[in-house]
Amino acid sequence: MTDAQIDQLISRFASPSAPPPSAAATLAPPLALDDLARLFDHTALKPDTTEDAIHRLCDEARTYGFASVCVNPCYVSLAAEALADTDVAVCTVVGFPLGAMLSATKAAEARHVLREGATEVDMVLNVGLLKSEQYDRVEQDLRAVVEAVRDEHADALVKVILETALLTDEEKVIACVLAQNAGADFVKTSTGFSRGGATVEDVALMHRVVGGQLGVKASGGVGSVAEARAMVDAGASRIGASGSVAIMQELEAEGSA
Amino acid sequence: MTDAQIDQLISRFASPSAPPPSAAATLAPPLALDDLARLFDHTALKPDTTEDAIHRLCDEARTYGFASVCVNPCYVSLAAEALADTDVAVCTVVGFPLGAMLSATKAAEARHVLREGATEVDMVLNVGLLKSEQYDRVEQDLRAVVEAVRDEHADALVKVILETALLTDEEKVIACVLAQNAGADFVKTSTGFSRGGATVEDVALMHRVVGGQLGVKASGGVGSVAEARAMVDAGASRIGASGSVAIMQELEAEGSA
Repeated sequence: MTDAQIDQLISRFASPSAPPPSAAATLAPPLALDDLARLFDHTALKPDTTEDAIHRLCDEARTYGFASVCVNPCYVSLAAEALADTDVAVCTVVGFPLGAMLSATKAAEARHVLREGATEVDMVLNVGLLKSEQYDRVEQDLRAVVEAVRDEHADALVKVILETALLTDEEKVIACVLAQNAGADFVKTSTGFSRGGATVEDVALMHRVVGGQLGVKASGGVGSVAEARAMVDAGASRIGASGSVAIMQELEAEGSA
Repeated sequence: MTDAQIDQLISRFASPSAPPPSAAATLAPPLALDDLARLFDHTALKPDTTEDAIHRLCDEARTYGFASVCVNPCYVSLAAEALADTDVAVCTVVGFPLGAMLSATKAAEARHVLREGATEVDMVLNVGLLKSEQYDRVEQDLRAVVEAVRDEHADALVKVILETALLTDEEKVIACVLAQNAGADFVKTSTGFSRGGATVEDVALMHRVVGGQLGVKASGGVGSVAEARAMVDAGASRIGASGSVAIMQELEAEGSA
């Protein structure tokens, strides 16, 4: 897409009354590569993940100083307890990974997970309704979750997962604008459960639309220091990865080489 | 597994006070192959499914006389409206496809979808907790949904998705017993979103454990008349398929050959 086409979509869909995102999304200073660990949402969302695996995930997050662990809702309280004495946040997912739940259920789920100890909520946009051009309903769905989160926990973050692998560029731009209209803090590329993950091009496009206002989280398939650096260069302010430890070990090996 | 091993697991985990399943699951007569259409849950659960696709799905279900359409929660009211003057049920999914939501969220989702017009709820068991050997919590999670469903709608069906591709045979048997203890109406093999779908062996094993009490739904990858027949022969009383129309057309071609 050309810059003019992007700007045209932004002005067509942007709401002048969009609520501001939470301070944490926008006021964080640009992170140096030394601070790579603080970019990672250390992630374990597979359905067969055990309690033991969550304990290991939390231990690793504590060791490396990751931004958060990202776990399924059933493990939020376990992770919150394991990380209570650290500054590692507990991130979880809502309406995940299909995004096709009712808005009332997504809002209820958001309230439930915050009460269990999560402070970051990665929700999935309703892709089917976006493709049905039901933009008002898509925005209302996002807004229902943002409002539930703000009501439960003033400082919690909401990230909106677009599932970019399923979207056209035009749909990606519209989705970013709707997320911003709804008051989200971040837009995020992927669930990791669809046919593709984060690409540098998508992160750059999303940053072009929301940059300066919302954070951009690159997730799905980021597995090396080079890939992580490329995402940061394209505008990512958070990286979701299950292989965060391997990336950190690669970085340490670079440093000692 | 040997029959003795299966019986040992059943007697170890079965609750003597298991509530009876809904009449609809057990009283249906064995279906002849002529009645194949009445076995199908005609399914469209992809996250990018549009409203137009749901309209087509409902038209097809009406034409062929399928048991139900199986759609994501956001499309339940649309399907219920489209099928109001038919005996095609609206089936939907809860905690889908990961099964790793909080029980409170699954129960809330079950109530929400029944109020929108669903009468069949396919819920996903918590695979991670099953693998963590938290059997009481797994059963409580199933029970929370069954009780919410019974409270909202006395005649609605609950099917418990095991996600057999992720389970050992022992876990499959235990999961069937826990579903029966919790008062579910069916056990179901697969979400269609994991690394494998229904197999004849799994359907036979599940039927061996719950047969006569609960129905068995074979789902994921059933795409031909031969596969559908094999599932029925193994004990399936319902088949979930997105290719139901192609299977019916194959059956019609057989009949006219």
